[in-house]
Amino acid sequence: MSELFDQLIPMLERSAALTAALALFEWDAETLAPEEASDNTGKIIGILSNDYFHSLINPEVKLLLKKLEEPDHNKQLTLEQKAVIKQLRRTYDQLASIPGREYSEFCELANKSSSVWAKARENNDFKSFEPYLEKVVEYKKKFAGYRLKAEGQKEDPDAIYNVLLSDFEPSLSTKELDDFFELIKEELVPLIQEVAEKKDEIDDAFNSQSFDIQKQREFNTFLADYVGFEKEKGVIAESAHPFTTNLHNKDVRMTNHYYENNLITALFSTIHESGHAIYEMQIRDDLTLTMIGAGASMAVHESQSRFYENIIGKSKEFWKPIYNQLVENFPEQLKDVELDQFVKAINKSLPGYIRTDADELTYPMHILIRYELERALFRDEITVKDLPQEWKKKYTKYLGLKEDTDTKGVLQDTHWSGGDFGYFPTYAIGSAVAAQLYYFMKTQMQFEELLEDGNLAQIKKYLGEHIHQYGMIYDMNELLQNVTGEKFNPSYYVKYLKEKYTKLYGLD
Amino acid sequence: MSELFDQLIPMLERSAALTAALALFEWDAETLAPEEASDNTGKIIGILSNDYFHSLINPEVKLLLKKLEEPDHNKQLTLEQKAVIKQLRRTYDQLASIPGREYSEFCELANKSSSVWAKARENNDFKSFEPYLEKVVEYKKKFAGYRLKAEGQKEDPDAIYNVLLSDFEPSLSTKELDDFFELIKEELVPLIQEVAEKKDEIDDAFNSQSFDIQKQREFNTFLADYVGFEKEKGVIAESAHPFTTNLHNKDVRMTNHYYENNLITALFSTIHESGHAIYEMQIRDDLTLTMIGAGASMAVHESQSRFYENIIGKSKEFWKPIYNQLVENFPEQLKDVELDQFVKAINKSLPGYIRTDADELTYPMHILIRYELERALFRDEITVKDLPQEWKKKYTKYLGLKEDTDTKGVLQDTHWSGGDFGYFPTYAIGSAVAAQLYYFMKTQMQFEELLEDGNLAQIKKYLGEHIHQYGMIYDMNELLQNVTGEKFNPSYYVKYLKEKYTKLYGLD
Repeated sequence: MSELFDQLIPMLERSAALTAALALFEWDAETLAPEEASDNTGKIIGILSNDYFHSLINPEVKLLLKKLEEPDHNKQLTLEQKAVIKQLRRTYDQLASIPGREYSEFCELANKSSSVWAKARENNDFKSFEPYLEKVVEYKKKFAGYRLKAEGQKEDPDAIYNVLLSDFEPSLSTKELDDFFELIKEELVPLIQEVAEKKDEIDDAFNSQSFDIQKQREFNTFLADYVGFEKEKGVIAESAHPFTTNLHNKDVRMTNHYYENNLITALFSTIHESGHAIYEMQIRDDLTLTMIGAGASMAVHESQSRFYENIIGKSKEFWKPIYNQLVENFPEQLKDVELDQFVKAINKSLPGYIRTDADELTYPMHILIRYELERALFRDEITVKDLPQEWKKKYTKYLGLKEDTDTKGVLQDTHWSGGDFGYFPTYAIGSAVAAQLYYFMKTQMQFEELLEDGNLAQIKKYLGEHIHQYGMIYDMNELLQNVTGEKFNPSYYVKYLKEKYTKLYGLD
Repeated sequence: MSELFDQLIPMLERSAALTAALALFEWDAETLAPEEASDNTGKIIGILSNDYFHSLINPEVKLLLKKLEEPDHNKQLTLEQKAVIKQLRRTYDQLASIPGREYSEFCELANKSSSVWAKARENNDFKSFEPYLEKVVEYKKKFAGYRLKAEGQKEDPDAIYNVLLSDFEPSLSTKELDDFFELIKEELVPLIQEVAEKKDEIDDAFNSQSFDIQKQREFNTFLADYVGFEKEKGVIAESAHPFTTNLHNKDVRMTNHYYENNLITALFSTIHESGHAIYEMQIRDDLTLTMIGAGASMAVHESQSRFYENIIGKSKEFWKPIYNQLVENFPEQLKDVELDQFVKAINKSLPGYIRTDADELTYPMHILIRYELERALFRDEITVKDLPQEWKKKYTKYLGLKEDTDTKGVLQDTHWSGGDFGYFPTYAIGSAVAAQLYYFMKTQMQFEELLEDGNLAQIKKYLGEHIHQYGMIYDMNELLQNVTGEKFNPSYYVKYLKEKYTKLYGLD
């Protein structure tokens, strides 16, 4: 029992309550809030954000944190308390290093920049967005500089970008990412080209018919339940872009977006977001509403959503027991589509411009391109002005695509407009972590048989026991070491994609 | 410009932000939150409530408030600032008079008591609820006692109850309520009996047919829009009991509850809640998110919801332009129901046990009974143990009803279980205020013609200009004086009910 730690608890609880309130406001804004509410609600959110900031950044927390980090005190803490202190230090340094006024200025800019981006994308007008993006990049450089200064780090051309990366995935730096993407390029680019040549072999035209949205809703509600989303602990709603958030482990919320002329998209949004949701629902009761009561990191979170979406959801075994039910919901549209054809269609690979539409095989190329551009930007090798051209060059180089609009190019993603540089790599790393887990889990259980039996519960239980329950106690590499016996190893990802697509397109 | 007042603003804004956050959590709990969320979310709400308390109850606010009340300072304030100071004083005294720990204990008790009440009602088991209600009453007496002590009030057998009343309607005490109910009894009891004898004259059997809930939803959405609910500033959802809440004037939310075998209930919930919502939507932009940015009082709020529900919504003129549309939604069920019969059915009067099912004529009797019981309880003339019997006696005396279960008797309303004594009278006063406004507005506009023309906008505009926009700047009597030229005068209410029901039942 640490008396010092106990003194910290009320402050941590307050920060958790404010975090939950802000999550609820964000959820509400995306799913329900009326059109004209945003100005007034923005004020409310500003005040609560400020309260959150000061709930952690204050002299009392600073002093307690410092004392609790001293080896004599620290060794008396439990495993969980040590993890809280580590996470509190990370959050404290992130927040405290930036002068309050500059942070507010940046938030205002990011907000404005996001809405300028939305218009620019609509109008294929990068020029109007350019000055905002330039300012956003400047701020991000300045803020990362503060952190480097506070941490006394030595000079390194990637130092700034590594700070940005660490905000989303503390276990990874450009060193690991370089190795990762080098392997991807070497192993996958030839395969992508080979597969692209066979692009007409899989017929997925059925997916462009009209699918009644209410019927889609019904099937997707069933599907969420089927994969393990617990409705007693969760809410499902609709929004412009699917996402998952949570107030705590017993209130986890996900959204979907339905398209009348695309059945497949919403199915995989459901499975993907259910993966995120199941993670949060299985975090231990004693961790939720603490600093370590969330997924271990962005990459680990994405590993779970992609494990569900791709490894489980895109397998034939998964659909075997439930495909009939989908056909019953859409008898006219699917009457001539056999299970085999459906499974091929949901896995069809084709180089395209849009990241979120990409299949599993070409997906990491989209991330590679963003990684290379972000890195060059923060090494000052290119400027914001160069982005559209550089973007197009890389799409030609890695995916063999000729020039297209900026709307389908550099303007397609929202991330940069709000300053989220360093976020993209976690998507690809998440897929790779999922593959590593998959090969290990196959040694522990009859994975494919469980899917064929509709026994998703056992897979969920395994992930809960080995990963989810721990929240942020362990980081990505610790989790992988504990579960699979080795740290992050991207070779499984390459193996997985090669095996899968070689088989799918009969390239043996 | 008052510098002192400016110093207060950040604190008031923080309290407004926390109030809005708590409103959002409450809304969410009633409409959406998952079943198992309540324990964790309860903790969050506890922390935010505590923040709210301390946002106002602190030495800085205390000192500023005291200074701003001094005549020399106070006279420099604007009308709005003076109203803020007055409201802040009221809230400050309400909150600060109760020791923090006792307040928390009470909140916990009230929470528990409400869930015990729900079970007791289900099982017709007052005995299980009795000890909780006794404790709730004790706390309310103690808390009101603190206020009396702080205010140095003299002894008066109704002093405690008057404190409770003032929390909901500062303009009214037992003195005014005695006069009000005396008039009601004298004038309405004979009429109620006369009408009850003609109970079979109006046939409303059509309302017990099956009405598709999705179709009800569609018509009620149209209806809300028709009466003036602005969907750009509001949200409509569903909950166990209809209610209205708001985050600010551009985010106003109301709910409904649909019954398959009752068309009429949901229609009038829509119109009633729209009345509340329109009030909040028309509060001035500079007042929302301040201490005076809500309806003037519970009674004034209720006057607006009942103005819409009863005076507008239960008139033939209102339904004339839209009844066809209702019939088109339910052609089978309403094919033989002419407009005249429909209007009679929605106004049918019949003494019954359930307050929320009561017609306009018998409604005030339900309130009278609760008023007499509450008052006797807080004068120590009866005890909690006596309530079930006293309840039944009064239902026999005023409504001629013979004994029924406690479920349909003393256990029917949730209010007392959470300590809301003094709330009920505002319902009847609201109806009376609505009638007073109605007779005055008829001198200002062609009221019935506007309804026949579907010109609800002009009525809404009038209420906005004369009442809604001011928020809490004026109290009930000031508003009535400003609009109608006289203070609260219940004779209009009696006149309204007598005219209406004499005509409806052909008693001339």
